[in-house]
Amino acid sequence: MGVACPLGKPKLAPHHTMLSTYQGKAKILYPTDHPQVLRVFFKDSATAFNGQKQATIEGKGRLNCLITTCIFQYLQSQGIATHFLEALDDRSILVRALRIIPLEVVVRNISAGSLCKRLGIPVGQPLPQPLVEFYYKNDALGDPLVTDDHIYLLGLAVPDQLTKLRELALEINRLLRGLFRGINLILVDFKLEFGLDADGNILLADEISPDSCRLWDDRAGSLEERIMDKDRFRQDLGQIAENYQEIADRLLSIGCKTKQMGDTD
Amino acid sequence: MGVACPLGKPKLAPHHTMLSTYQGKAKILYPTDHPQVLRVFFKDSATAFNGQKQATIEGKGRLNCLITTCIFQYLQSQGIATHFLEALDDRSILVRALRIIPLEVVVRNISAGSLCKRLGIPVGQPLPQPLVEFYYKNDALGDPLVTDDHIYLLGLAVPDQLTKLRELALEINRLLRGLFRGINLILVDFKLEFGLDADGNILLADEISPDSCRLWDDRAGSLEERIMDKDRFRQDLGQIAENYQEIADRLLSIGCKTKQMGDTD
Repeated sequence: MGVACPLGKPKLAPHHTMLSTYQGKAKILYPTDHPQVLRVFFKDSATAFNGQKQATIEGKGRLNCLITTCIFQYLQSQGIATHFLEALDDRSILVRALRIIPLEVVVRNISAGSLCKRLGIPVGQPLPQPLVEFYYKNDALGDPLVTDDHIYLLGLAVPDQLTKLRELALEINRLLRGLFRGINLILVDFKLEFGLDADGNILLADEISPDSCRLWDDRAGSLEERIMDKDRFRQDLGQIAENYQEIADRLLSIGCKTKQMGDTD
Repeated sequence: MGVACPLGKPKLAPHHTMLSTYQGKAKILYPTDHPQVLRVFFKDSATAFNGQKQATIEGKGRLNCLITTCIFQYLQSQGIATHFLEALDDRSILVRALRIIPLEVVVRNISAGSLCKRLGIPVGQPLPQPLVEFYYKNDALGDPLVTDDHIYLLGLAVPDQLTKLRELALEINRLLRGLFRGINLILVDFKLEFGLDADGNILLADEISPDSCRLWDDRAGSLEERIMDKDRFRQDLGQIAENYQEIADRLLSIGCKTKQMGDTD
């Protein structure tokens, strides 16, 4: 093991020195005057089931921008290296350009979603310890689950990097569980993406929002009522923006700073 | 990690002290007078794509019985512990009753089949080193790929057992590649199953045949012509029994002994 890219060319997407706009499903990446800085614009579009279900949810872009800003600032304050630089306006943040590692790193604390479908276990079972999974970020292939050996075979990461990704994912999980517990939210699972800077350092990238996390209210009644994340869209439960707003409000209530460029203290 | 069955009851199927017949897709297991011994009958039925494609291939049962006998006897002669006891007749073998570990252990030397579909790589690429994969043996779930952590979560094996399964799979691969190379066959990939005896020892179980291996002739021309295994059935290439017969003939030509009970030397 440990041989990068044995089956061909490197698969890392060269986000750095990006010259043109990149249109994602929920975000748009724009180049800036600085070659090492990108602008991330949060769209109101929602997609699920690998793009098969689509809708526009007014306010989602602004709320995910705000929530991502809160969370990345919190993680940075706790020593996690991230791509986040600063909030630009209420729909955009500035981030460091990285070579994105094409893996979705999923951490699970409670069984839900594809874990239940894959393994035939019921929704809502607390796991004996957090579970880390890797999915190959490839829309054409449907983002398949991959094992460590698949990752080495495809040259997506070498063993030291994979060890580091697992450590970072678990540390971020520890921090976020605590953060959300403090605002009466249960962090069920979430998806992370990471990138490499020019020196090969691994930084947290992408977003952390109710689009990428399962968050359950720890107070309300039925499971459906407790869902506050994108599962409301996947499962047609309605009140999506209202729930995202509630998450944002709770983060703001504990002092999340979302200062934008040009604001004065 | 290492906690067996954290999510519920043990998942190991109690094949030992089996009292009634077990009907599999390609084999039938019968109890015998001895509670620790089962009779395995090889059927002529072929299935693929999780049972969606079915057919009867006359002679397949006899040939898979013969090939499995050859290969298990060879592996035993090389120090691999298996469930194989002896050939009973030309369609049946006697095996030790084991608690079957519900994992399909797949070893790949060359890219083919689901690996190519999952990862988007072309068929026929030699892998830089043999790849071991685990699939959760569960028809209702479609035998999903699982990671080590999924295996621990489901209580299918503990870490020491998984390490041993990997070691055994790679050692069996080394032995079988050599065996097949000697009869001009390329071992592309294969599936193993293992079971536990009453003392917790891990023994090779199930069958090893062109139903469970991809075998390519190393001499002929096009890839389709070279396929000698169940892919001929999956891909409607015809001449299935003829190819299985050719594999059996080559094994017999190098001295495979298939003595049945009651034969005298």
